[in-house]
Amino acid sequence: MTELIRMGKAAKTAARALAAAGPRKNAALLAAAAGLERSREKILAANAQDAADARRDGMPEPLLDRLALSGARLEGMEQGLRSVAAQEDPVGQVIGGSVRPNGLKIEKVRVPFGVIGVIYEARPNVTADAAAICLKAGSAVILRGGKEALRTNAAVVEALRTALEESGLPADCVQLVRDTTHASADAMMRMTGYLDVLIPRGGRNLIRSVVENARVPVIETGWGNCHVYVDASADIGMAANIVFNAKTSRPSVCNAEETLLVHKDIAAAVLPAIKARLDEKHVEIRGCERTRAILGNSVVPASEEDWSTEYLDYILAVKVVDSLDGAIAHIAKYSSGHSEAIVTSDYESARRFVTEVDSAAVYVNASTRFTDGGMFGLGAEIGISTQKLHARGPMGAAELTTTKYIVTGNGQVR
Amino acid sequence: MTELIRMGKAAKTAARALAAAGPRKNAALLAAAAGLERSREKILAANAQDAADARRDGMPEPLLDRLALSGARLEGMEQGLRSVAAQEDPVGQVIGGSVRPNGLKIEKVRVPFGVIGVIYEARPNVTADAAAICLKAGSAVILRGGKEALRTNAAVVEALRTALEESGLPADCVQLVRDTTHASADAMMRMTGYLDVLIPRGGRNLIRSVVENARVPVIETGWGNCHVYVDASADIGMAANIVFNAKTSRPSVCNAEETLLVHKDIAAAVLPAIKARLDEKHVEIRGCERTRAILGNSVVPASEEDWSTEYLDYILAVKVVDSLDGAIAHIAKYSSGHSEAIVTSDYESARRFVTEVDSAAVYVNASTRFTDGGMFGLGAEIGISTQKLHARGPMGAAELTTTKYIVTGNGQVR
Repeated sequence: MTELIRMGKAAKTAARALAAAGPRKNAALLAAAAGLERSREKILAANAQDAADARRDGMPEPLLDRLALSGARLEGMEQGLRSVAAQEDPVGQVIGGSVRPNGLKIEKVRVPFGVIGVIYEARPNVTADAAAICLKAGSAVILRGGKEALRTNAAVVEALRTALEESGLPADCVQLVRDTTHASADAMMRMTGYLDVLIPRGGRNLIRSVVENARVPVIETGWGNCHVYVDASADIGMAANIVFNAKTSRPSVCNAEETLLVHKDIAAAVLPAIKARLDEKHVEIRGCERTRAILGNSVVPASEEDWSTEYLDYILAVKVVDSLDGAIAHIAKYSSGHSEAIVTSDYESARRFVTEVDSAAVYVNASTRFTDGGMFGLGAEIGISTQKLHARGPMGAAELTTTKYIVTGNGQVR
Repeated sequence: MTELIRMGKAAKTAARALAAAGPRKNAALLAAAAGLERSREKILAANAQDAADARRDGMPEPLLDRLALSGARLEGMEQGLRSVAAQEDPVGQVIGGSVRPNGLKIEKVRVPFGVIGVIYEARPNVTADAAAICLKAGSAVILRGGKEALRTNAAVVEALRTALEESGLPADCVQLVRDTTHASADAMMRMTGYLDVLIPRGGRNLIRSVVENARVPVIETGWGNCHVYVDASADIGMAANIVFNAKTSRPSVCNAEETLLVHKDIAAAVLPAIKARLDEKHVEIRGCERTRAILGNSVVPASEEDWSTEYLDYILAVKVVDSLDGAIAHIAKYSSGHSEAIVTSDYESARRFVTEVDSAAVYVNASTRFTDGGMFGLGAEIGISTQKLHARGPMGAAELTTTKYIVTGNGQVR
């Protein structure tokens, strides 16, 4: 893959200029938003071609929906660039330090990674989002999107590169891999010495493939088998409302609820209330035996597989558990470690749940749907890490930086 | 490797108890120090057998020295355990947080990784050090040392496990892999779902092998091709002193200087002063042409290979550069990204060096030898990360934790 190596070298050179760019990064982001706006027609035309080909090739409707851009979606991308420009710059932040007994002053400072690779699938909005966050974090980015969105991505990247040049930054801060075969993804996973970190964004298979095959450092982003546990002491209205929101407000995303756990002492009271809400959206319930005993045989029996399935759909697995311990054990066994919530009015249950459940985000009396960079106040996010190394949970620009120690003295030796 | 999977399961169970152990971890560390003290004879006898076998098999003298324990070295290991006990506990530290406009309270809290794997070579002191830091960080550890130290490691681990049990913690918080073939190392690299992070500690080949083959997350620890750059404005005495210290105070470690860069305008004045100091320790100088023109033909000519060699010995590569930019470019090309120092009296040179040199630790007017957890005030260290992901530079117990978000509300939905 000599082409990728050439891109890697160009990215390293661009990254050096970018590391020292300071506020010019924000000017470039605003120029990029204006550039996308100017190129709307071109981008929409490219996207229409991509969508027509995908439809012809039999892409399923939900994926076609992810691929398709509209004026409103483009405006959302532009607005995204502007909001990243408005965020605080993580580069240069001093996040620790001390003066040692020998007089050495030690500072720990946020610095850019250098070059970030992003492999993603058929959502062209990722192109602008990922480029913007990497740029803000001071790193050059090499983007490899899905083949279905290639024309769209190329048009978006062209607009971004033009804006970078107008702002006096190297166009190669943002590069797009035009070879969308498996070979190019594999080659990116092996770009040791060129990529400082590789982030896969997409479905479970893509992420698994990257985690298994990459030799460069990887941040695994989320699939989510998220749980809501309704404790014996829960407020029934609150429980039904949170379950309804976590399941149905956007079922296709990784922070949506997939399994509901209910304490046996409240099951008979709360399950009918929850079902009444879920029925509004025609949610299919797959329940354990005790759930079916309460809700009736119209509930589909849950199989072992249901407990580990990320439906991303209007389907909810439901299990009645004997205790808080049972809920915690179920989550430990089946969760993907993304987001879990307890609904409770008991102080000790809340305390134990947040302490003992080992996931990126644990909630008391709130919907799992809040696990999101914007909702957490991190600004735009590049994904939600479900690994424990480097970053866990929503990743904004600060999570896309590394640190260095700056040590200043006046002749100290050891 | 069913044995490793069995160990992985035991470690996960132990880790759950350890995560909630709080100050009992410190009691266990103190008990472990006492346990090592009680087992001194047994450990020294095991080590004598290991050393005799290694000598018989032709292990070179410097490696034999690393393998050999003495009463004093054992005391050092015991003292190490006590000092880790005295350190601040990173687990539970709240390192960020906010209340969102909707009233959700978000806290970012340090939590244990879970299970940490450490693969290392023939230094048995790593066994106690690594176990202590992982324990402090609230994680169970699976240790795989070199085959040459197996009897010693087994004796040390037995003492540690007994101390854990005495302190009411599971013995399986610390486990030793007794199969020291390549197969066991390879199997550890693939223990997805059991190891949350794998840390290789040892030579360049071990680290490269782990980075290339691991499927579990890895923290790469350092080999160091460290540079000292003597700027045109440097104080000559300070420069000679720092170069002498960085090269000779302990040449076998990763933070020792390997290449000296000297600005052309000060080369004729400073190089003889530096050589006079280095001659005290019979350091071999491998110089560029300009260095040899100043120091004479007794200096060995440096080859291209010298610029990227980690000698770990009384050898120093020396190059005269035209400018600060030349020094920065040389470091960017050849450094391993560990530690680099500038000696200067010029403010702007210092500012540019620490900003533009991209290494884990950058120094002004101090020896590179300070890159060390103890020297940085982090307490004991498990190694020095030369990767950019997760941790960079010396890693203490805090660097061996991950984080989770705890989000508390009163019914918020999105």
